[in-house]
Amino acid sequence: MSEQAVTAQSEDFSSWYNEIVYRADLAAPSPVRGCVIIKPYGYEIWEGIKSGLDRRFKATGHQNAYFPLFIPESYIKREAQHVEGFSPELAVVTHAGGKELEEPLVVRPTSETVIGEAFSDWIQSYRDLPLLINQWSNVVRWELRTRPFLRTAEFLWQEGHTAHATHDEAEEETLQMLDIYADFAIEDAAIPVIKGEKSRMERFAGALRTYTIEAMMRDKRALQSGTSHNLGQNFAKAFDIQFLTEANTQEYCWTTSWGLSTRMVGAVVMTHGDDKGLRLPPKLAPYQLVIVPIYRRDAQRTAVLETVERLRKSFEAANLRVHVDLREGQSPGFKFNDWEMRGVPLRVEIGPKDVENNNAVLARRDVMGREGKQFVSQDDVVAVARELLVDIQRNLLEDAREFRDAHIQDASSYDELRAIVAEGEWARAFWDGSDDDELAVKDETGATIRCFPFEQPDAQGACVYSGRSAEKVALFAKAY
Amino acid sequence: MSEQAVTAQSEDFSSWYNEIVYRADLAAPSPVRGCVIIKPYGYEIWEGIKSGLDRRFKATGHQNAYFPLFIPESYIKREAQHVEGFSPELAVVTHAGGKELEEPLVVRPTSETVIGEAFSDWIQSYRDLPLLINQWSNVVRWELRTRPFLRTAEFLWQEGHTAHATHDEAEEETLQMLDIYADFAIEDAAIPVIKGEKSRMERFAGALRTYTIEAMMRDKRALQSGTSHNLGQNFAKAFDIQFLTEANTQEYCWTTSWGLSTRMVGAVVMTHGDDKGLRLPPKLAPYQLVIVPIYRRDAQRTAVLETVERLRKSFEAANLRVHVDLREGQSPGFKFNDWEMRGVPLRVEIGPKDVENNNAVLARRDVMGREGKQFVSQDDVVAVARELLVDIQRNLLEDAREFRDAHIQDASSYDELRAIVAEGEWARAFWDGSDDDELAVKDETGATIRCFPFEQPDAQGACVYSGRSAEKVALFAKAY
Repeated sequence: MSEQAVTAQSEDFSSWYNEIVYRADLAAPSPVRGCVIIKPYGYEIWEGIKSGLDRRFKATGHQNAYFPLFIPESYIKREAQHVEGFSPELAVVTHAGGKELEEPLVVRPTSETVIGEAFSDWIQSYRDLPLLINQWSNVVRWELRTRPFLRTAEFLWQEGHTAHATHDEAEEETLQMLDIYADFAIEDAAIPVIKGEKSRMERFAGALRTYTIEAMMRDKRALQSGTSHNLGQNFAKAFDIQFLTEANTQEYCWTTSWGLSTRMVGAVVMTHGDDKGLRLPPKLAPYQLVIVPIYRRDAQRTAVLETVERLRKSFEAANLRVHVDLREGQSPGFKFNDWEMRGVPLRVEIGPKDVENNNAVLARRDVMGREGKQFVSQDDVVAVARELLVDIQRNLLEDAREFRDAHIQDASSYDELRAIVAEGEWARAFWDGSDDDELAVKDETGATIRCFPFEQPDAQGACVYSGRSAEKVALFAKAY
Repeated sequence: MSEQAVTAQSEDFSSWYNEIVYRADLAAPSPVRGCVIIKPYGYEIWEGIKSGLDRRFKATGHQNAYFPLFIPESYIKREAQHVEGFSPELAVVTHAGGKELEEPLVVRPTSETVIGEAFSDWIQSYRDLPLLINQWSNVVRWELRTRPFLRTAEFLWQEGHTAHATHDEAEEETLQMLDIYADFAIEDAAIPVIKGEKSRMERFAGALRTYTIEAMMRDKRALQSGTSHNLGQNFAKAFDIQFLTEANTQEYCWTTSWGLSTRMVGAVVMTHGDDKGLRLPPKLAPYQLVIVPIYRRDAQRTAVLETVERLRKSFEAANLRVHVDLREGQSPGFKFNDWEMRGVPLRVEIGPKDVENNNAVLARRDVMGREGKQFVSQDDVVAVARELLVDIQRNLLEDAREFRDAHIQDASSYDELRAIVAEGEWARAFWDGSDDDELAVKDETGATIRCFPFEQPDAQGACVYSGRSAEKVALFAKAY
């Protein structure tokens, strides 16, 4: 697989990305337009994402459920903005069981509608609130330009849906889930996301407010990596989700929804990858260590493999995810390159000399060459590996944070903003423009408002476009 | 929820089942024809099934992957028997992104075709074999008569797909996966399934041999609970899955597939449930224990809840899944009934007297009334509960096994078979009939051959229908 070097990031980031995704065996092309196959190595990263999130969802009182894949077409039309937002992307089942259906069924692009309808059945009184539901599922949005993990016609995700008695509780939930996404991204995926609020233009179809975590990829483009929506009473009114209050009155619920998808796998690739391939954060890496046995003669082979097997067991006993590369007919050099391509955080080399001297070589993926290599006594190798994995996790985050911070610049005029965006950087600027102003900036620069970050300067300023006094800065960037 | 008694099993098993499913909050009706919503309590049982199986799949070298939901219509048609088997049940997407598609896309009823196509890309040589893949996903089969969990237009399942160099390796895999299903069913779900081979008539469309685990429900009907197929080279030929042998020749692979679905949730309900509701095996129960606090006055409340909270922590520290029922405005009696309906294996009652005497009451779901109740010192309650849960798991299995064995009868003539089936029992009889004979038995008795069980008598016998000398007995029963 790794005979030929991949395209350098600096040369063509987009080609680099596609090559990495396929050569690191994360995904494979599929015969279905706009869909990819998620291969085991990519799927294991997704399983890591799932378990990291699921644990956090359950710890905050959410329960998983499963709703139908198909949604009657009429449901989608019930919330006006919602239908406008999703109509162009729908896949529609018109025939089933050999007959034309009376009402076409839409393959879910998201499940606010069918879950809204269910909530209206399930919720009677304030005693039923809050209702905190999450679903792990596939969704379909018929996109024209697709890229593995970043944008595919079908993708995997979780969608949370909750109902509350008051606006403030719904807002608290919306922000709590954003915090969970950010905590997961930073702690597990080592992606230093920025939390913020979306502009009106970029809001979810039908939401009161949309919050987002935004990440900077290695080409400095922004990737929206998870969103959390306060839906106000819009869906409650469209689907008649009412409850009896303690004071015995009927009121509409306040609902939220929040989602994070297999796009996060793409974020991991594009945040940490380099010209050698993937660099996986140890907490999400399918294999945290790979052991490569090195030998020439058969006599060496037996002794080396004995040691390798012993070490494998020690790593497993320490709950580390270890893989032994026993492929015959491939040189150690080929294997080193291959595992570098696949981003395994730590490589363990065991040769005949190491067997003799009770040594092992540990090589870090995040620090290439001699600097990242060390000889360790086999007696200490598990303990040292464990420490190194913690350090690699920390280092990848630190590295990404430095990169991010080096490429966000303040713009105090529209000319400056234009220049910054033209360089491919992110611009931070005061903003109080209209929707039309925002569209104009997009047309003229290619950048969109990624968010109004929660972290704001103390002072007010002048809107970089309209010149009006503005309370908040926004982040502008080209985005995926 | 539980104010009114459910229909007795003996009165109308089918009504009993539907009432239990909805009143125990496993599922809810959905607005989409033939689909149900799996509610959190039902979904947690499915999560238990998933983790029990996934652990076993991974321990035997299988990896998870994800393939597209949509399959080009032409793919389905490539394996002749396959298309015949699935055509009547297909749901078809004809429009997407606002346009009519050039080729309609089938919503996967199963993924042999699209995975076969992928395997033909991925497999080059014997070094790539065996290829051991599993997928957790939703599938759609447009069924006319649907019932929650047992038969729904959309359901959740896993489908394993593997490729091998030889027939024998594929056969070994097929049988290994059947063993895994049986081990899971018996050990985790406490369902004493019978392993066997399907008749030609009941084989998977396109398979060489189909193996099954069959379970007896409390109405004595059979439920096919998981199947494992040796696909021979049929799909390899249809999808050109070839490999280079060590001897440098091109050969077709031998493939297998095997699946188990949310139907297993229905099997748990119908194997263990009684007229009071569900009885969940502790290994799959979302809550293994529920604590019901009992108090009248506010002064009692504080002391009781303190004790309850302390016990909750002890149970959690012992890794037991515990729930505290703090609902206000509901009597303890209501709560007892409700948790009996929902099948929680152990109930813990804590009242003011128990606080005073450092006691707790433990009540088993599988042994109702006084006999299943005991007073335990709070100091021992965790240890005793743990032992009781092991005993409940064992008891449910034993109970189901006794029930099963009491309702399988040997038939030495067709008249006997007819009589046994008419009583609603399973008949075990020698069989060497033709496909037409098998259809005739189905027409005349309503029973199908569930399987040729692996456990066979030592002697040969005469076929119960054709009178020909027969090597094997088959199990005949009415089935879901």
